[in-house]
Amino acid sequence: MPMEPRLLKGFRDYLPEQMIARQSVINAIRNVYERYGFVPLDTPALEYTETLAGRAVYGTEGSGQIYTFQDRDNEWVSLRYDLTVPLSRVIALYKELPRPFRRYQVGPVWRVDKPGPGRYREFVQFDLDTVGCPDMLADAEILSAIHDVLLQLGLSRFRVRFSSRKVLNALIAFAGIDACRSHDVFRILDKLDRIGQKGIAEEMKGGRLDVSGDFIPGLGLSDSQVVRLLEFLNLPQPSRAIALDGLSQLFAGVANAGEGLDELSAIHEYLTALNIGDDQVAIDVSLARGLEYYTGPIFEAILLDAPEFGSIFGGGRYDGLVERFLGEKVPATGASIGVDRLLAAILKLGALELRPSTATVLVTVMDPQWRVEYQKITRELRQAGINTELYLGKEKGVGKQLQYANRQRIPIAVLLGADEAAQGIVSIKDLRVGSKAQAELKDRSTWLQARPGQFTVPRPQVVEAVRSILSG
Amino acid sequence: MPMEPRLLKGFRDYLPEQMIARQSVINAIRNVYERYGFVPLDTPALEYTETLAGRAVYGTEGSGQIYTFQDRDNEWVSLRYDLTVPLSRVIALYKELPRPFRRYQVGPVWRVDKPGPGRYREFVQFDLDTVGCPDMLADAEILSAIHDVLLQLGLSRFRVRFSSRKVLNALIAFAGIDACRSHDVFRILDKLDRIGQKGIAEEMKGGRLDVSGDFIPGLGLSDSQVVRLLEFLNLPQPSRAIALDGLSQLFAGVANAGEGLDELSAIHEYLTALNIGDDQVAIDVSLARGLEYYTGPIFEAILLDAPEFGSIFGGGRYDGLVERFLGEKVPATGASIGVDRLLAAILKLGALELRPSTATVLVTVMDPQWRVEYQKITRELRQAGINTELYLGKEKGVGKQLQYANRQRIPIAVLLGADEAAQGIVSIKDLRVGSKAQAELKDRSTWLQARPGQFTVPRPQVVEAVRSILSG
Repeated sequence: MPMEPRLLKGFRDYLPEQMIARQSVINAIRNVYERYGFVPLDTPALEYTETLAGRAVYGTEGSGQIYTFQDRDNEWVSLRYDLTVPLSRVIALYKELPRPFRRYQVGPVWRVDKPGPGRYREFVQFDLDTVGCPDMLADAEILSAIHDVLLQLGLSRFRVRFSSRKVLNALIAFAGIDACRSHDVFRILDKLDRIGQKGIAEEMKGGRLDVSGDFIPGLGLSDSQVVRLLEFLNLPQPSRAIALDGLSQLFAGVANAGEGLDELSAIHEYLTALNIGDDQVAIDVSLARGLEYYTGPIFEAILLDAPEFGSIFGGGRYDGLVERFLGEKVPATGASIGVDRLLAAILKLGALELRPSTATVLVTVMDPQWRVEYQKITRELRQAGINTELYLGKEKGVGKQLQYANRQRIPIAVLLGADEAAQGIVSIKDLRVGSKAQAELKDRSTWLQARPGQFTVPRPQVVEAVRSILSG
Repeated sequence: MPMEPRLLKGFRDYLPEQMIARQSVINAIRNVYERYGFVPLDTPALEYTETLAGRAVYGTEGSGQIYTFQDRDNEWVSLRYDLTVPLSRVIALYKELPRPFRRYQVGPVWRVDKPGPGRYREFVQFDLDTVGCPDMLADAEILSAIHDVLLQLGLSRFRVRFSSRKVLNALIAFAGIDACRSHDVFRILDKLDRIGQKGIAEEMKGGRLDVSGDFIPGLGLSDSQVVRLLEFLNLPQPSRAIALDGLSQLFAGVANAGEGLDELSAIHEYLTALNIGDDQVAIDVSLARGLEYYTGPIFEAILLDAPEFGSIFGGGRYDGLVERFLGEKVPATGASIGVDRLLAAILKLGALELRPSTATVLVTVMDPQWRVEYQKITRELRQAGINTELYLGKEKGVGKQLQYANRQRIPIAVLLGADEAAQGIVSIKDLRVGSKAQAELKDRSTWLQARPGQFTVPRPQVVEAVRSILSG
């Protein structure tokens, strides 16, 4: 009995069509990040569990989602949950790395999440971080790079949003909330896009029934505290400058509120210098971010025409993460793009066309006696830098082989069969013209040589003909 | 107390210098494979254990090296051991995939190996396979692609070796060995490069003491059987044609020996058609390959100037692997490059230069009052497609910043400090000229504008000057 082929629950295969698209997205991001002078890093999939563990890092929910097991040496090991904590380990381990260390890393991370539509247990993150620079220049650079990535991908209708955990800390003081409740408040604020201000107010007070009928207990804040939270959420923010004004008025009497405001206005000034406008990178005071390790600016972005995909990148400053290893704060800021989610949004928006093949030319196999010639033509096209597939399938008929080329969206086919050989020609078809109107090259008499009895395939001319079709 | 930062035993980090090199190797391989019209696939790191398990797949040693654990759903799951078995699952699962399915896949695999110098538990494989084509054209194409990859990487002194499991099956018959001992014989033959013919003979007969003093029990073959094995191993193989002649004479009386010979001579003919010579792709009858799943041609390659790295790629035909799922044989052939081992060999041979940075230009930060100008210059260089880093480090002095650029091997530095501003100029240094002889652009009067009192940085001219340095 053969075994049933099964894909592990919560995981997915990337078949060629999707994978070609994913690679083009990854390459575009990589090009922008290298344009900024960031350098690549790779770390293992597995880490000692203690490196990742701890609620202070990922919070209760996050740390419950880490894949953990005992290996053959009886060590507790875990699949990485993100690329940020491995980076902090690398920073602590290799003292010789330059500071600031500006690195990018792309690779899968694993989380034991409940599988569902668009929710997988393995997904690719593309991270960009600068470690060792306390100046907001570093944060502005991250935002600028993300801005460039989205433009590069043909996604001009986006909104990057930023705020600062320090502004949220001022909010906690302003609303008279106990500082030890901060993370609970932030966690609820992070749901704003999903549950709205009404939902926020309920969760801050007595609790809320969610759509599935479950009761979500509230934080038990007072009415006056929640009024102040809502006053904050309702600050007008038509531009970065107006948002900053509103914040500084609201927090006029709050001790230390200046720190967060200084961060935001520094980033605002740098962005302005870079000609990055309010419509594309905006202050959004309601931004909270779920993770506990952020200590300063926080970032997010949505696609205006695909808001249902939520945040397609997120990040912020986390000056305390390396401290776990080194015992001293190390300034660090960065962002992570969810590549799979971004790709899904790009495909939904039609900003990228799916192709199942990387080949530009299919060399058909019409007559076994010409097999060696097919190989030689193929080789010559490849050597000319043209992606070329030699047909290796079962179909003997040229019609079926051309159908295959059409299905694979391979634009050009090379044909050499008994008829062609008798005439001393090779046919080159532009399949994009349509299957009925397939046009042979009209000027083939100029590049084909008919030498009865001693037919030689004019390979350089085949290459030339393909090039001329490609150049339009 | 801070936690000690620890890299998991048997694993490694790829720091930027190594990672930039690894990426360039991966890109070179990918380009060749796409030139051949192969398409990318990605599969999860984790598979159901039963998908990978079974001695028939990886043999006793291999299956003992699979990372296996029970996940939160109490399912037994395993980290993939290679990329071939996941491919066979994909073939069985997605009936809509074209046949032949010609795919490449690059990614890490995991094995619980004993860690040691150059031996890691996680390493990157780059696989190339054609599924659904019984013709040796597919095998010849794999060999041709590997041949092209090695040339592309600047490694012209290599030897690709091929043989066939069917030739080895004929050897078993020729030597009068019981067919059920075949895999044991192949496993020992696979050690030829390491232990020589003497070691082979000992392990085939009564056993052998290895260098560490351990006794390796022998197979108990008779003297006459071993004589025949050695006769086979000593066949002269100065060229593919002579090797084929020798084999057909040696196996003249052996039933079914023709099958393996036909495979080898078909591949030989195809390679000859492609102008791939005996010196680069040779028949080597001693080739055995460890894995049990091979059913036809088998391949390997060594670098002639770095033989100590052993086989830098390996592969073969495995017509039975998809059968586990589909219940019918599906022809398949392919090869796997060990990227990390290949990279180590390339670096040892000096065929690739290490660089710790992706940046071409460092914009120094000499005076805080010009900070916004530094940003703007940086942005303009990036928009011109030049990889540019804005200095974000702690050093205030330009000397230290230039030292940083030198350490990072960034060739060009842009300087704008109090002196430059007073003169109304920007300095652009070609750091490759040497730290003492750092030359400022001589013709800067042509592109710099001195406007006393209202100095404007001539950004387009900065870009132009950088371009002119780069173009030599």
